[in-house]
Amino acid sequence: MSTQNPTFIPGPTNIPDVLRKAVDMPTIDHRSPLFGAILQPALAGVKKVLKAPSAEIFVFPSTGTGGWETAITNVLSPGDKVLATRNGMFSHRWIDMCRRHGLDVTVVAQEWGDGIPTDRFEEILTADTDHRIKVVLATHNETATGVRSDIRALRCALDAARHPALLFVDGVSSIGSMDFRMDEWRVDVAVTGSQKGFMLPPGLAIVGFSPRALATVETAKLPRTFFDIRDMARGYASNGFPYTPPVGLLNGLKVAGDMLLAEGLDNVFSRHHRIAEGVRRAVGAWGLRLCAIRPDLYSDTVSAIRVPDGFDANRIVAHALQGYGVAFGTGLGDVAGKVFRIGHLGSLTEVMALSGLATAEMVMADLGLPVRLGSGVAAAQEYYRGSRSAVEALAA
Amino acid sequence: MSTQNPTFIPGPTNIPDVLRKAVDMPTIDHRSPLFGAILQPALAGVKKVLKAPSAEIFVFPSTGTGGWETAITNVLSPGDKVLATRNGMFSHRWIDMCRRHGLDVTVVAQEWGDGIPTDRFEEILTADTDHRIKVVLATHNETATGVRSDIRALRCALDAARHPALLFVDGVSSIGSMDFRMDEWRVDVAVTGSQKGFMLPPGLAIVGFSPRALATVETAKLPRTFFDIRDMARGYASNGFPYTPPVGLLNGLKVAGDMLLAEGLDNVFSRHHRIAEGVRRAVGAWGLRLCAIRPDLYSDTVSAIRVPDGFDANRIVAHALQGYGVAFGTGLGDVAGKVFRIGHLGSLTEVMALSGLATAEMVMADLGLPVRLGSGVAAAQEYYRGSRSAVEALAA
Amino acid sequence: MSTQNPTFIPGPTNIPDVLRKAVDMPTIDHRSPLFGAILQPALAGVKKVLKAPSAEIFVFPSTGTGGWETAITNVLSPGDKVLATRNGMFSHRWIDMCRRHGLDVTVVAQEWGDGIPTDRFEEILTADTDHRIKVVLATHNETATGVRSDIRALRCALDAARHPALLFVDGVSSIGSMDFRMDEWRVDVAVTGSQKGFMLPPGLAIVGFSPRALATVETAKLPRTFFDIRDMARGYASNGFPYTPPVGLLNGLKVAGDMLLAEGLDNVFSRHHRIAEGVRRAVGAWGLRLCAIRPDLYSDTVSAIRVPDGFDANRIVAHALQGYGVAFGTGLGDVAGKVFRIGHLGSLTEVMALSGLATAEMVMADLGLPVRLGSGVAAAQEYYRGSRSAVEALAA
Amino acid sequence: MSTQNPTFIPGPTNIPDVLRKAVDMPTIDHRSPLFGAILQPALAGVKKVLKAPSAEIFVFPSTGTGGWETAITNVLSPGDKVLATRNGMFSHRWIDMCRRHGLDVTVVAQEWGDGIPTDRFEEILTADTDHRIKVVLATHNETATGVRSDIRALRCALDAARHPALLFVDGVSSIGSMDFRMDEWRVDVAVTGSQKGFMLPPGLAIVGFSPRALATVETAKLPRTFFDIRDMARGYASNGFPYTPPVGLLNGLKVAGDMLLAEGLDNVFSRHHRIAEGVRRAVGAWGLRLCAIRPDLYSDTVSAIRVPDGFDANRIVAHALQGYGVAFGTGLGDVAGKVFRIGHLGSLTEVMALSGLATAEMVMADLGLPVRLGSGVAAAQEYYRGSRSAVEALAA
Repeated sequence: MSTQNPTFIPGPTNIPDVLRKAVDMPTIDHRSPLFGAILQPALAGVKKVLKAPSAEIFVFPSTGTGGWETAITNVLSPGDKVLATRNGMFSHRWIDMCRRHGLDVTVVAQEWGDGIPTDRFEEILTADTDHRIKVVLATHNETATGVRSDIRALRCALDAARHPALLFVDGVSSIGSMDFRMDEWRVDVAVTGSQKGFMLPPGLAIVGFSPRALATVETAKLPRTFFDIRDMARGYASNGFPYTPPVGLLNGLKVAGDMLLAEGLDNVFSRHHRIAEGVRRAVGAWGLRLCAIRPDLYSDTVSAIRVPDGFDANRIVAHALQGYGVAFGTGLGDVAGKVFRIGHLGSLTEVMALSGLATAEMVMADLGLPVRLGSGVAAAQEYYRGSRSAVEALAA
Repeated sequence: MSTQNPTFIPGPTNIPDVLRKAVDMPTIDHRSPLFGAILQPALAGVKKVLKAPSAEIFVFPSTGTGGWETAITNVLSPGDKVLATRNGMFSHRWIDMCRRHGLDVTVVAQEWGDGIPTDRFEEILTADTDHRIKVVLATHNETATGVRSDIRALRCALDAARHPALLFVDGVSSIGSMDFRMDEWRVDVAVTGSQKGFMLPPGLAIVGFSPRALATVETAKLPRTFFDIRDMARGYASNGFPYTPPVGLLNGLKVAGDMLLAEGLDNVFSRHHRIAEGVRRAVGAWGLRLCAIRPDLYSDTVSAIRVPDGFDANRIVAHALQGYGVAFGTGLGDVAGKVFRIGHLGSLTEVMALSGLATAEMVMADLGLPVRLGSGVAAAQEYYRGSRSAVEALAA
Repeated sequence: MSTQNPTFIPGPTNIPDVLRKAVDMPTIDHRSPLFGAILQPALAGVKKVLKAPSAEIFVFPSTGTGGWETAITNVLSPGDKVLATRNGMFSHRWIDMCRRHGLDVTVVAQEWGDGIPTDRFEEILTADTDHRIKVVLATHNETATGVRSDIRALRCALDAARHPALLFVDGVSSIGSMDFRMDEWRVDVAVTGSQKGFMLPPGLAIVGFSPRALATVETAKLPRTFFDIRDMARGYASNGFPYTPPVGLLNGLKVAGDMLLAEGLDNVFSRHHRIAEGVRRAVGAWGLRLCAIRPDLYSDTVSAIRVPDGFDANRIVAHALQGYGVAFGTGLGDVAGKVFRIGHLGSLTEVMALSGLATAEMVMADLGLPVRLGSGVAAAQEYYRGSRSAVEALAA
Repeated sequence: MSTQNPTFIPGPTNIPDVLRKAVDMPTIDHRSPLFGAILQPALAGVKKVLKAPSAEIFVFPSTGTGGWETAITNVLSPGDKVLATRNGMFSHRWIDMCRRHGLDVTVVAQEWGDGIPTDRFEEILTADTDHRIKVVLATHNETATGVRSDIRALRCALDAARHPALLFVDGVSSIGSMDFRMDEWRVDVAVTGSQKGFMLPPGLAIVGFSPRALATVETAKLPRTFFDIRDMARGYASNGFPYTPPVGLLNGLKVAGDMLLAEGLDNVFSRHHRIAEGVRRAVGAWGLRLCAIRPDLYSDTVSAIRVPDGFDANRIVAHALQGYGVAFGTGLGDVAGKVFRIGHLGSLTEVMALSGLATAEMVMADLGLPVRLGSGVAAAQEYYRGSRSAVEALAA
């Protein structure tokens, strides 16, 4: 019966019924006009969610990791310099991928829990007077630590350094749930997947390329075929794919885009903020604190919660699953055992969030942590009531 | 997004994914052997859930109301005497049906919140020395008031009165979630539906007939065709139906029976008791009381909660739906406006129940009722933790 | 793998994917406004399909048989006179139901394969000068014989006899696939089900009442509760049901109505005629003939095909299922063993029909009947090509 | 309504209902034990279908193209020599991928319609005395031309040449539908996808590595991360994935493996042969011939059918879709316009195949080709009857 409870892993998210049905399609001929009627609106919807009228969107049967590989292999050549920070498991993995592809990565170490050090980036970029750094990598939302970095500020840092490096952003756990402005922030490649803000099953890498990024494709020397956006672009031009497209997931993407835009992106972001803030109030009521070290870093899609020193946070995740059939996220990498994570992205309601908080309380009490039952729930309830009224007042 | 939250109406219940898939079938030929392979195990499963090896099971494309009509029209003739109590909306409706079918119903009025008055029934039956009363109607679980009557005690009353009346039991909101022993209690007709303990969509009346009840079918004079169990019995004998069978729902019934029996009926009943008791602890913590007037009457499938005098309970239900997307049950009939109901039957977990309790708290606080946020949740959490450990200790 | 082949039983029909998804719903609160947003459009759609602006529509969790019972119990009283013909299994069963409900049925025997004898009906009605006949029963399309009777002509017969009897029509296997004009033909009660022209799973009785029929409801003495349209009407008035409604099927009915009206009823009827005529061409090419004795009686939803004398038609049905995984309909009642039936109603294409014809040919050849392989297919292909072009020419 | 007709593109195939339901899963925690219970049986099932007890199986969220890239990037280094033939669009594309990845491909040109020239391969390998050729690429079944090459013979050629090159086989449109013996034929990398023999939606690359192929992984210099089998192997070892796994498709793969093995691989292959041979008989009856130039090359999963010179085969595909709602495959590359293709792989019955043949006849007649209606259907029917009896005789 475990699938009855909502899931609180930071993706894949709970899938709305309408999206499960959109994905569950009988076979159609993907070379017929039926396919174009799915593909083109799906791409158009992504463009709107990315706020990227100037970008080209590419969707691969893959995952966010494949999206990263699409980004680097279509733009870069072996030995190219890349600047990145490592402040969590996902930024770490992207750096690792770059190195395995022969890129020369300058890594700025950062505390796990902190965001992208834009000042330091500005210094490095300013010092790079011959513009050898080709790309700056940024993880908008570190899923491992629940830290949202400020991409707008990063763009300002590049501008202040008058550096022409392209800006690549991993928005896997932010796009569709938190504000992302590809054009306004002049992001050159944005990467996400189907299973987070788009509320779909995993299986799609979704990548946006700016005109500047597109312009590098012919000179990029990293080998690629599956992830080559040139083949993909040619395919799209005739309503097709260079290989067999994942039709059902694309149909789901089309409907997910429609759903997000019908709700209104600002409403979607407010909803995520409201649910997240309730979770944070609960964390405070429990006497715990987040992995994210400052409020301006708090993520609205995932909260990584520090447990008391000496306590193994993995026990919380294991006991929640075994004792109550609820899935939370474990800590990864440097914060393994030190945090557990509550995902609150995608399709979620305050009511569902409260059941996760209530479960976390029982689990922590069972394991002897000094958490008073109902305390976090009450703090969240109080916030949800107030914020809700405020929202409704605005709507009235 | 309202379908994401669990529902807390006292039926139809939340439908497990595996049952939705079992019901969602392509068309098969219902006159082919494929149908028998669905029908016969479905009937066999119901028989086990009813604990009724001696009974015949009939399943109609209908609802519990149709099950009542099946019971009376296959056994009784116009003018026949029936004994019943009215202690809630559903017992009221069955009495009403009997009268519309020309039966002579002796109604024992009972407070809504009380159970079947077995002592009074025994007196009436003892006084009925020429055995003109043909049938005693009983509502095992009054869904309107959250009252479970004691069918075993009722059977004892009939025995004490040495009265041969048949015993008909409406088990719509009990069977499959609370203990029901058709053979042991010598129930003659038991009625339920698909959408409660069997966790399916509505659409099936499920009726068990004892050999004594079956013996009256030829002499019963109430007209019937659609609900005639003789046609149905003939159909079943050749793996068919007298008309088009609802194949998908029957397949769901087969799988639902398998699920209940795989979990173990005692485990199913314990689970419902545990979840219900947590809800009752919450009600106590809120300073409210149940409509059911004594603990021995408390239902494990639905709790009807009295609100303070002068407060309209329907406001709770309306605000929960509009403000939080959660469905509770309104009060019906004599207790309309006086109670709201939390259904906790079918496929439910403690975690889901806690989200309902948390919602009820926010709603009551929003409406100005003196309920402390988190109080009921904490009381339920405390119970769920303890009871769970006890269960696990037993399992170990 | 048997569910991969299309089914050719004359209902339940092949269910389009979009309708399976519409029916497969999570639980919603059927007392919330969500339900009204399903119910009212579903009823409105049925009204349009029946071409019955003046009628009230009632939908029960039941089947066509329950629809018949709804018709008679809401209008008639024990001993009332009814006029009917028996020309197939379904007209036979309705007559049987009337008798079991204590009605006085005048039955005009008719060859199975012939239609309603409107001349004879006119004579009987004319002779009934004191208007003791309250209702005339008619089976629009005899599913057992593939015979469509002329309801318009029957209405003319009543008019010619200047007889006020109400006209009840079983349109179970016609409505939604063949033209039916409830208002124009002044049909007083029309009955159908979900699993034929509406292409849904079984589980709904769908009944339309004219104002004249509605006017009799209070004086009708036949007992009824489950099928009482008064309770149903009161329910609908507040967007509810008198008992638990089959929400998923009603949602399917809403979508099915939308589908039929979007295709256009005339186009739906043309499609059925075209497919049916192709089947009839095939039958002719096989040297066989239909059970329906005259072309004006040919049904566009089901063809009952006579086999040579001495050959058991059931062997065809059994061998098709076992040898090829294809379901045809057996002969019923008087024509059992003498005919097999190809259903071609609901959601079907010419391409699917051809696979049924090809299968029938293999089956008959396997069983030694003198049918040339490909002969019926070729006759149908030739017709489908021509008729299609004609349709397209009209569309252009 | 186009999704009602079976599809005859050579993949993705018609998806059985049970597989659609297996894929359509609610979100589970992919780091919980629930995932291992899906992943490991899925991998074990693939191993059995590949007849590869010694191989390691890797499944990526990708397509067959991604499978090719997995094969080459995990084994080869820039500049490595590869031997291949180009005899259709898919062998062409694999060669193209190798070149884009900096490999040195020796291409043996071959007529489209012919198979792998094993004699010529043996000569080249024999001449390669210093064993500079690292890998031989083979396309088991050219989906573009309907040509099945003889992999066993190719293995013999390598052996005869005493050449240590690894043997990579694209089995995308053969594995699971035609016999494939990875261990016996000493195939080193076998590639397939989810959407052909496994009857699932697209979205999985499925790759088997022999121990010899695995041994090269550390020395292979082609950059890779997403497709790196080392990360994947580490993931599998702890029941996980290196990134978010496509849980639903993997669950589908598990069930698909169970289905194929329950039917029995030999029965699956016989079924495909039987259906394919019926299609070929039809082609003969139409007076047409296959693209495959010799009977030993005929594919049991797809038939590419040559049209008369001067006739554009694409008109057949376009008219079938527009006029009859049936999807056939167009000709690709060198045979574009010269052939149309009937896919007969995956989940298909003779009955479905006959509807495709009947449609093709109508289409060709509509377009003025001299094809007699019913002729191909009759030829296939005759064969299906006979072959079926033979199969049944064996079973009896």
